[in-house]
Amino acid sequence: MYDVTEIRRDFPILSREVNGKPLTYLDNGASAQKPRAVIEAVTRAYEHEYANVHRGLHFLSNLATEQYEAVRGKLQRFLGAAHEDEILFTTGSTMSLNLVSYGWAAPRLEAGDEIILSVMEHHANIVPWHFLRERQGVVLKWVELDANGDLDPQAVIDAITPRTRMIAVTHMSNVLGTVVDVAAICAAARARGIVTVIDGSQAAVHLPVNVQALGCDFYAITGHKLYGPSASGALYAARARMAEMRPFIGGGDMIHEVKRDTITYNDPPHKFEAGTPGIVQMIGLGAAIDYMTGLGMENIAAHEHGLRDYARDRLAGLNWLNVQGHSATKGAIFSFTMEGAGHPHDISTVVDQKGVAVRAGHHCAQPLMEFLGVTATCRASFGLYNTEAEVDTLVDALETCHRLFA
Amino acid sequence: MYDVTEIRRDFPILSREVNGKPLTYLDNGASAQKPRAVIEAVTRAYEHEYANVHRGLHFLSNLATEQYEAVRGKLQRFLGAAHEDEILFTTGSTMSLNLVSYGWAAPRLEAGDEIILSVMEHHANIVPWHFLRERQGVVLKWVELDANGDLDPQAVIDAITPRTRMIAVTHMSNVLGTVVDVAAICAAARARGIVTVIDGSQAAVHLPVNVQALGCDFYAITGHKLYGPSASGALYAARARMAEMRPFIGGGDMIHEVKRDTITYNDPPHKFEAGTPGIVQMIGLGAAIDYMTGLGMENIAAHEHGLRDYARDRLAGLNWLNVQGHSATKGAIFSFTMEGAGHPHDISTVVDQKGVAVRAGHHCAQPLMEFLGVTATCRASFGLYNTEAEVDTLVDALETCHRLFA
Repeated sequence: MYDVTEIRRDFPILSREVNGKPLTYLDNGASAQKPRAVIEAVTRAYEHEYANVHRGLHFLSNLATEQYEAVRGKLQRFLGAAHEDEILFTTGSTMSLNLVSYGWAAPRLEAGDEIILSVMEHHANIVPWHFLRERQGVVLKWVELDANGDLDPQAVIDAITPRTRMIAVTHMSNVLGTVVDVAAICAAARARGIVTVIDGSQAAVHLPVNVQALGCDFYAITGHKLYGPSASGALYAARARMAEMRPFIGGGDMIHEVKRDTITYNDPPHKFEAGTPGIVQMIGLGAAIDYMTGLGMENIAAHEHGLRDYARDRLAGLNWLNVQGHSATKGAIFSFTMEGAGHPHDISTVVDQKGVAVRAGHHCAQPLMEFLGVTATCRASFGLYNTEAEVDTLVDALETCHRLFA
Repeated sequence: MYDVTEIRRDFPILSREVNGKPLTYLDNGASAQKPRAVIEAVTRAYEHEYANVHRGLHFLSNLATEQYEAVRGKLQRFLGAAHEDEILFTTGSTMSLNLVSYGWAAPRLEAGDEIILSVMEHHANIVPWHFLRERQGVVLKWVELDANGDLDPQAVIDAITPRTRMIAVTHMSNVLGTVVDVAAICAAARARGIVTVIDGSQAAVHLPVNVQALGCDFYAITGHKLYGPSASGALYAARARMAEMRPFIGGGDMIHEVKRDTITYNDPPHKFEAGTPGIVQMIGLGAAIDYMTGLGMENIAAHEHGLRDYARDRLAGLNWLNVQGHSATKGAIFSFTMEGAGHPHDISTVVDQKGVAVRAGHHCAQPLMEFLGVTATCRASFGLYNTEAEVDTLVDALETCHRLFA
């Protein structure tokens, strides 16, 4: 039984007011709030169990190492990876995707080699590939969406040429909520020896994920969107791909032996985890994963699908609101503009006065904005603790906003 | 008045026991414990004031952005930088130094160009330069220490050739506690157009630092050693150098405009800060900086110099202990081996039974180990909350250890 009232009590911030109104937090696409279990895991670590990991032999160092390394197994199970050593700890999807770009792609892609992207990628899954275009002549090929905002897997497959080396697509759009049939794309890519990089920043928050079922080579997640701490995250890298990767960040822990004129590297995954890591953040992310799996990802998804349906119906009733993206299988993320409102920023500012936190801007997805023919949208993005009553609050706030600007 | 008893009460973990004994935490060189002010800043952020920064317009996002960005000014003042925009937020010194390597050095250094390093650098200030050796033929030139473990600035200057492009040295050795006369090195380098990269991971914890007085181009610090959260840190980059840097990590926030076939970048410092940053960690680091400056860096340094003198005398009385490094101006960091003890790991394990946390190993400084003619040492490293009584506890534990192994 998914008791959202009970669940909300786990999140201290949800009981606060903003501008004299109860907080209606609908900015989950940008970052999620944290349950008490996560905050307490962080506090406990700092208050009672903190030390640097891996290189110590004393009690606290061993304790911190045990707790920190246990998160690898949690993430393995959360993502359905075959092996624990396929999980690389990072500070979030941005770092995960840069690790793929610098570690796997940069040493192997040559001028004229192609990377296929969808137009709805987040900048985190665009800029690392633009670097390869700028620096070594790699070609970016873009696949557009259909009228509903869906990405047809066949359109991606059709974009493949003999020069295609990599396909980098999101599993769920941070702007439209569109869910991509990643498995179909990965199957076709694998059959042609093309490497797949999946940006799971949004999908892993809202859907059960199994990287083996998806058949991808890389899958990036970001902890702060997963109800975990700032600067936590991970990259799933299939063993065969990880074996091909060059070290990216250099420093302690990732080496085997450093001499004046030679260097040898540690084994994966540590080879790709340099220096003192985000020890406490990762312990906190472990608590967040436990929290989510405790609720059940299937249950979270079902709850959010209910919210999606309810919000879709309510927003459809506002005939002055232009909602972007109508995929039947989308997640509970709604981007819109309003007739009469000069800029989505104005909407955001007005509804904020009602305690409603939404985001406005290009959402780090400028190629998508261009495809949609807008410069910005206002976005309401839901999470596991949101309610239908909050959808109503959003709609009321939008109606106020519309009256102001009409 | 520096009241260490009072100060210790600010650190919750210091009142815990380890193996039935009061914790004597002498592993500060690896990572420092956190005062309540830092832990509470982190908790408060997650419980009441959390949202993603920069791109929001709602109340919580503005609040988080204000608190997060305020840390830049704190770090500017802490490091004595001329401008706030010379402070880049990172996840620690490892990332700071890699940012210099990938962002400044990699695009400009050519095969045969030289980087001067001291043999006592931490791997974080070695491996990023080894990458340049491996990948583009840059030459690493090493400067040795004198018999006391001091680095003669003139020896560094003498190593300069017409091919020298960069000098990368630590401000304080994490193994020996040696403090380097960075200002003398930087003055000579600047006169020759050579860029200086200073690893301040240890020095900024123990000494007042002023990057303008030092005259360096880059200065790296790491938050978790500065009594701040995991995965916080910064890089000071002089404006002129930052203007020369190429973007390193690609993603949101660091761009101006992303199109399908072109990209333009944000202004510094944001150009070098991609994606959702370590929001709460940096807020926590701000609290740590406030805590340290509240005590006064001069006072912290004076307290630790007292500890150094006391520990030096007490350890000198153990004629079966081989202490490495005898610089007159060293910090309170002591590395040693013991006659009769098979391996420094054994020392660490034995003293741990007395509640004493020290580290054993190569301390991410293998070239220094080689220079010293050892494979590992045991290291006791002191912080602002340590006491002379803890020096006595260490000495007692070492005596027990010596009796066991003798």
